[in-house]
Amino acid sequence: MTAAFEREVLIRFGHCDPAGIVFFPRYFEMLNAFVEDWFNEGLGVPYAELLGPRRVGLPTVQLQTNFERISRHGERLAQRLWIERVGRSSLSLRVSFDGADGPRVSFGQVLVCTSLETHQSQPFPEDVRAALVRAVQQQQSHQSSEQ
Amino acid sequence: MTAAFEREVLIRFGHCDPAGIVFFPRYFEMLNAFVEDWFNEGLGVPYAELLGPRRVGLPTVQLQTNFERISRHGERLAQRLWIERVGRSSLSLRVSFDGADGPRVSFGQVLVCTSLETHQSQPFPEDVRAALVRAVQQQQSHQSSEQ
Amino acid sequence: MTAAFEREVLIRFGHCDPAGIVFFPRYFEMLNAFVEDWFNEGLGVPYAELLGPRRVGLPTVQLQTNFERISRHGERLAQRLWIERVGRSSLSLRVSFDGADGPRVSFGQVLVCTSLETHQSQPFPEDVRAALVRAVQQQQSHQSSEQ
Amino acid sequence: MTAAFEREVLIRFGHCDPAGIVFFPRYFEMLNAFVEDWFNEGLGVPYAELLGPRRVGLPTVQLQTNFERISRHGERLAQRLWIERVGRSSLSLRVSFDGADGPRVSFGQVLVCTSLETHQSQPFPEDVRAALVRAVQQQQSHQSSEQ
Repeated sequence: MTAAFEREVLIRFGHCDPAGIVFFPRYFEMLNAFVEDWFNEGLGVPYAELLGPRRVGLPTVQLQTNFERISRHGERLAQRLWIERVGRSSLSLRVSFDGADGPRVSFGQVLVCTSLETHQSQPFPEDVRAALVRAVQQQQSHQSSEQ
Repeated sequence: MTAAFEREVLIRFGHCDPAGIVFFPRYFEMLNAFVEDWFNEGLGVPYAELLGPRRVGLPTVQLQTNFERISRHGERLAQRLWIERVGRSSLSLRVSFDGADGPRVSFGQVLVCTSLETHQSQPFPEDVRAALVRAVQQQQSHQSSEQ
Repeated sequence: MTAAFEREVLIRFGHCDPAGIVFFPRYFEMLNAFVEDWFNEGLGVPYAELLGPRRVGLPTVQLQTNFERISRHGERLAQRLWIERVGRSSLSLRVSFDGADGPRVSFGQVLVCTSLETHQSQPFPEDVRAALVRAVQQQQSHQSSEQ
Repeated sequence: MTAAFEREVLIRFGHCDPAGIVFFPRYFEMLNAFVEDWFNEGLGVPYAELLGPRRVGLPTVQLQTNFERISRHGERLAQRLWIERVGRSSLSLRVSFDGADGPRVSFGQVLVCTSLETHQSQPFPEDVRAALVRAVQQQQSHQSSEQ
């Protein structure tokens, strides 16, 4: 199934631990940067404006992670993202970081839209919701054209 | 239910993001440090020797995380750990970081014992296995004396 | 010369790189946490209140660092801090992280007091200034009693 | 003066602190990633091979840092690097991360070539030395053609 967004990430020296493989908390930094890239480049919603002047938060509330294979310094992983569900104020994603030998780590992530004044959940702003709906439609049309 | 291990962690400036709350990848650094403390102080298995000269790895293979409440700079969280299951070469933990108002984040973590030469799974070394079994027994005896 | 503040830090797995030694950016996280401890425990100025509700910033403007010896996972370093100079709105520190074999890393750090509304420098708040002056006096009295 | 190497870096949410600006230890992660990019893309020396299978280390031994202006989430900084001196086993760099309003942070960094078996300094491998000498010559020829 075609991903809604795709990028590549280089595994850096600073991502790796004395065992010579990615220190697992670093994968979550990569995940957050990847979602940031998706908002900026995929959805066309400037992430820094959203979380800055617009005071809209996108905290992660659930995260299921499978570490499937090790990754080493110098490798390039394909990062892929699929939208599972867009709710009124929540968003479910599936994300995979893949090497040549298959998935290295996969995530099921639920994010919630909040006000950064109150840290309470709130509906997505109209433009964000529209961008998410468009992205779901594109994902589905890719999917049906693949069948 | 009494935890098998318990510590306190201070939420530091460097853990927090522009929204003023913990940046979620930092929780995983705290989780790894907490498991390290448990090995050193709870199990009596020096973690640095295990992963260094003994070349025994303990990578996380599955991690389910619920972010339940926000945490802010300057707060002290109680970190608690329960052993769910000790297998031949795997270990399932439940971990919770709690504030005064209840759990902030809770983890279900599965770790596997590996060789750091091959990154393949292997049975726990005898002393580690014995320490884990002892910890499970203590956890159960606390539990039954609580009933 | 007796330090104005002293703590111990454990070198953790997550601080170390594939070369098996501390990844140098981690030393700066330790430095920031150490200065935070000094404010909280040494100066008696709650750091989270200062940078949170009081909106007083303490950014680092200059930092000279010498990495003198390597540090490995599992080592405990003595962290020591000396006040070099307290200005109207700036503070110069000397900090050393020491192993049994001598200094591992030493820092000359200049911090400035700012408003977090404007990010412009401002004089230290009265209580912070008083605490800093007291700390300098204690440091000097230790020093003269050592002679 | 033309830089020997130049890239751009996006200031991410995860780089920033509750004051809304880059948390200074994150600049050092960016610095290390930038030097890694320079080896890979500028010098044509694969950094992961060097520090991995070839067991050649490049620890930083001295680092002078000036934090000149604040950087905020969403900004793009130009990263520039100049070679100051190539020694038998050491390398002095000047690095600057610049915003539209001028330098945000500038570094004077001294790295040493070591053996990762012994952590002792050693001369640069021939290919690395040759690549560094070539880079210095290019930097100088750019410089003279600018005059």
